[in-house]
Amino acid sequence: MNLIKIKRALVSVSDKADIEYIAGILSKSGCEIISTGGTKRRLSDAGIQVTDISNITGNPEAFDGRMKTISFQVESALLFDREKDAEEAKSLNVKPIDLVICNLYPFAEKVKQGAELPELIENIDIGGPTMIRSAAKNYKWVTVITDPSDYQKLEKELTENDWHISEQFRFQMMRKAFNHTADYDAMIATTLDEKAGEKSIRLFYDHGIELRYGENSHQEAVLYRDNTTENSLADLEYLHGKQLSYNNILDIEAAQLTVRDIPQTAVAIIKHLNPCGFACGDDQKEVLTNAWFGDPVSAFGSIIAFNKKLELSSAEFLELNNPDKSKRKFIEVIAAPDFAEGVIDYLSFHKNLRIIKFDPDSIKSKFNLRFVHGSILWQTSDDKLYDSLNQVTEGDIDWISDQDLIEFGLKAVRSIKSNAIVIVQRSDKGILRLTGMGTGQPNRLIATQLALDKTRTNLRNEAKDAGIEDIEEYVTTQIGKSILVSDAYFPFADNLELAAESGIRNIIQPGGSIRDKKVIKTARALGINMLFTGIRHFRH
Amino acid sequence: MNLIKIKRALVSVSDKADIEYIAGILSKSGCEIISTGGTKRRLSDAGIQVTDISNITGNPEAFDGRMKTISFQVESALLFDREKDAEEAKSLNVKPIDLVICNLYPFAEKVKQGAELPELIENIDIGGPTMIRSAAKNYKWVTVITDPSDYQKLEKELTENDWHISEQFRFQMMRKAFNHTADYDAMIATTLDEKAGEKSIRLFYDHGIELRYGENSHQEAVLYRDNTTENSLADLEYLHGKQLSYNNILDIEAAQLTVRDIPQTAVAIIKHLNPCGFACGDDQKEVLTNAWFGDPVSAFGSIIAFNKKLELSSAEFLELNNPDKSKRKFIEVIAAPDFAEGVIDYLSFHKNLRIIKFDPDSIKSKFNLRFVHGSILWQTSDDKLYDSLNQVTEGDIDWISDQDLIEFGLKAVRSIKSNAIVIVQRSDKGILRLTGMGTGQPNRLIATQLALDKTRTNLRNEAKDAGIEDIEEYVTTQIGKSILVSDAYFPFADNLELAAESGIRNIIQPGGSIRDKKVIKTARALGINMLFTGIRHFRH
Repeated sequence: MNLIKIKRALVSVSDKADIEYIAGILSKSGCEIISTGGTKRRLSDAGIQVTDISNITGNPEAFDGRMKTISFQVESALLFDREKDAEEAKSLNVKPIDLVICNLYPFAEKVKQGAELPELIENIDIGGPTMIRSAAKNYKWVTVITDPSDYQKLEKELTENDWHISEQFRFQMMRKAFNHTADYDAMIATTLDEKAGEKSIRLFYDHGIELRYGENSHQEAVLYRDNTTENSLADLEYLHGKQLSYNNILDIEAAQLTVRDIPQTAVAIIKHLNPCGFACGDDQKEVLTNAWFGDPVSAFGSIIAFNKKLELSSAEFLELNNPDKSKRKFIEVIAAPDFAEGVIDYLSFHKNLRIIKFDPDSIKSKFNLRFVHGSILWQTSDDKLYDSLNQVTEGDIDWISDQDLIEFGLKAVRSIKSNAIVIVQRSDKGILRLTGMGTGQPNRLIATQLALDKTRTNLRNEAKDAGIEDIEEYVTTQIGKSILVSDAYFPFADNLELAAESGIRNIIQPGGSIRDKKVIKTARALGINMLFTGIRHFRH
Repeated sequence: MNLIKIKRALVSVSDKADIEYIAGILSKSGCEIISTGGTKRRLSDAGIQVTDISNITGNPEAFDGRMKTISFQVESALLFDREKDAEEAKSLNVKPIDLVICNLYPFAEKVKQGAELPELIENIDIGGPTMIRSAAKNYKWVTVITDPSDYQKLEKELTENDWHISEQFRFQMMRKAFNHTADYDAMIATTLDEKAGEKSIRLFYDHGIELRYGENSHQEAVLYRDNTTENSLADLEYLHGKQLSYNNILDIEAAQLTVRDIPQTAVAIIKHLNPCGFACGDDQKEVLTNAWFGDPVSAFGSIIAFNKKLELSSAEFLELNNPDKSKRKFIEVIAAPDFAEGVIDYLSFHKNLRIIKFDPDSIKSKFNLRFVHGSILWQTSDDKLYDSLNQVTEGDIDWISDQDLIEFGLKAVRSIKSNAIVIVQRSDKGILRLTGMGTGQPNRLIATQLALDKTRTNLRNEAKDAGIEDIEEYVTTQIGKSILVSDAYFPFADNLELAAESGIRNIIQPGGSIRDKKVIKTARALGINMLFTGIRHFRH
């Protein structure tokens, strides 16, 4: 344990929260309190007996407060080895200080307030980091507290150990101290670099949790939390099931990107970071049914994310307790901002299902980062759906004036990996849904083919299930009422021809190709309504 | 300019490189040099007149060197405002110090050497950061140099300004100083956290270059370089053409992942972060031709990466100066570790082509990072191709004993986004090549279908070009001599049935499904050779 009795403490804080409380406890135990300037006044006013720092330093407070604590006497009192250097300390009249309570000038606060350079400079603390680092280095003998939220832990430690501090606690606080000074100087360095027009970025992540493995089982992995953010994917609440895997976390991020910022109830079904099912509308069970419709094969083993409280009637769509096991829809993860009564119990029928409480709208990321070997790419988020909706051709079946459907289609295509094509429609019950998508192709024509194939299969199955007689007529009619959305412009008119063959009559794309004229001409010839949005939505 | 004359300098360095050189220059100009311990001895030995620091501090060096510089006198001399505080300084007998040359105890070095905690603790510098930070805060009057590589700049500044320093230089060095102390404490904090079993990670990137835009033109983007790495994608040499775009950089990373660690000459053709063409062998032009074969449609507008010096005969395959413009193969970026004579001139026929000098084997990443909202996922790289090659079935056409082809197929599938299927073969001329791939699908069956479709199309075109009469027989024979590789296990036997229909007789997959027995049974029934590798290669 190597317990050290606290006989003398140096207290000098910028954030004065609870300082009377902790200094009072120390003082009552007979500990001498040494203090400076404003801290000293606060403690004296609270009736706590305080020694002025200048009695220790032998120097006055000087230069408008720039010099208060830094001195041979104070830093020696913190730094000398209580065994090896004991004689030398005595001869130099240095008496040990056992505890430092210190936090730093509010540099970050001033940055937030938009302070100019001279004010920022004045808020660079020099004496504080010197004391903190001296005490931290000598943690074998000295305790350093840099965070007011640790005062209670300090009190507990003192009362439990008869006014002594354990080495374990000193080591823990010492690590916190160096994290504190590192963060402090990083904030200064980044701010000043920015003032000089130099772009630098410092990222701090902690609370690392080892995952079972990475993307594959032969890869190790750790999930770290950004220590400066309020809301992080690492804060997900696990309500049930196995720990999230590396791939689950990537899928949940893709789900968040898909269902964010939608006022109605929305559901995304994610497989390999892409929504293969996606729908939105008013009735949650209908919405889930229509999301499932998007790819009922791939939906098995998927991640399903909701943007509203999950209702029991929706959850029951999964038929997890159906006596006919072949009817049970097994998925890997279900995520929702909240769960209605009975839902967790119901979902727990599937014992491996991971249930996650997570509000996709709680995370607002203004930028994202991409790590490439030894570098990072920083970019602002893809938050603009379209520039303007410019109808460049008018066709014979108009389904392109449905503003909600247009926006839904753009949100769908923005969430899907490039090259991406989606086909979306408003169902007969008014639900907006993805009927098929093509993703990740090196060639736009293949993506279009994939989206059309999937749409046709889905509609055929729907017609069959509904007992519709003329299935092909149903499919063609429904496709005519759908919109095909492309994440980037069509470089050639072949995509339009392929789409038209399957009955597509409404197309949205950004435009901007050198062959736009040719593409527009083909759309006219094929009787297709086409909108240009002016905004590409590549996602990789 | 606000020029400050350097009359007194404090020199105290751990890294003593070139210290006599810069101190000598200062001394000759009449500047007083104050120094400590080892630095002082070095300078005295070089015949430079030095004032001992204890003459300034008024204190002895104490506690085994833990106390040398920290004192009211030294830090006051660095910190006081030369205008406002002039009177006070005089009354306290504080004389200004105009320059600090200081670098810190080699903590990082000791970490690398695997030093134990007590030795690490002794190597936490206290006096150094205090001097550096004091001087940096008072940059309006004081210059601080923390990097020996800045001595020449300091000399230039001094000689150009008649032994004065400009404010611009002082500000620049001050920013560098705070970056230095931030990095230093970050290294300490991370190392000590690790010793305590706490996982934290700190990342520093600088030299940020604003890109024209991000993934899309409505997104801003910056490329930063990791300041701790030796080799970074940000160090690419641009030899010709427009600046690299955000998406180019992502594609180059994908190219690097594909062609790394291949002893023969290898070529990858990248589109949307996937190799759509990939080949390796001895004759570079043949290799490029076979890589192009993989997807001659998508190859237009692609990124082509070589792992060896690009020869003129290979470059000429692109026919960039063909009078028949339709024959010219336009690509976006070409990257190679080196270029034979005449190649750059030849490639410059295409004026927008970006030519990049880049050695894919210069970058060895042991881990990668993935940013998710407010968190990061750290994982080790996917560097293990297979666990063991376990032949679980023997079929009627054996092409699975070609070890080089197996490894090539696994390298191909590892580079492709999941779900991924590749079909690879050894061409009649002995080149290993990708004949078709399926990528990014929510459902493995679609990926298999895509790889088969592409392979058939490519082989048909090859047969046509070669004037082969029985095209379908050629296609089936070639497919029989190919291997289909899956990045993850087949959950059902349907993939095998689909592959067998097209003539596939050789399959490699990790295995590990609960339905492996059924899949093996189907492979036997279909006469398919199947290898299990034990290693999945998801990439997202």
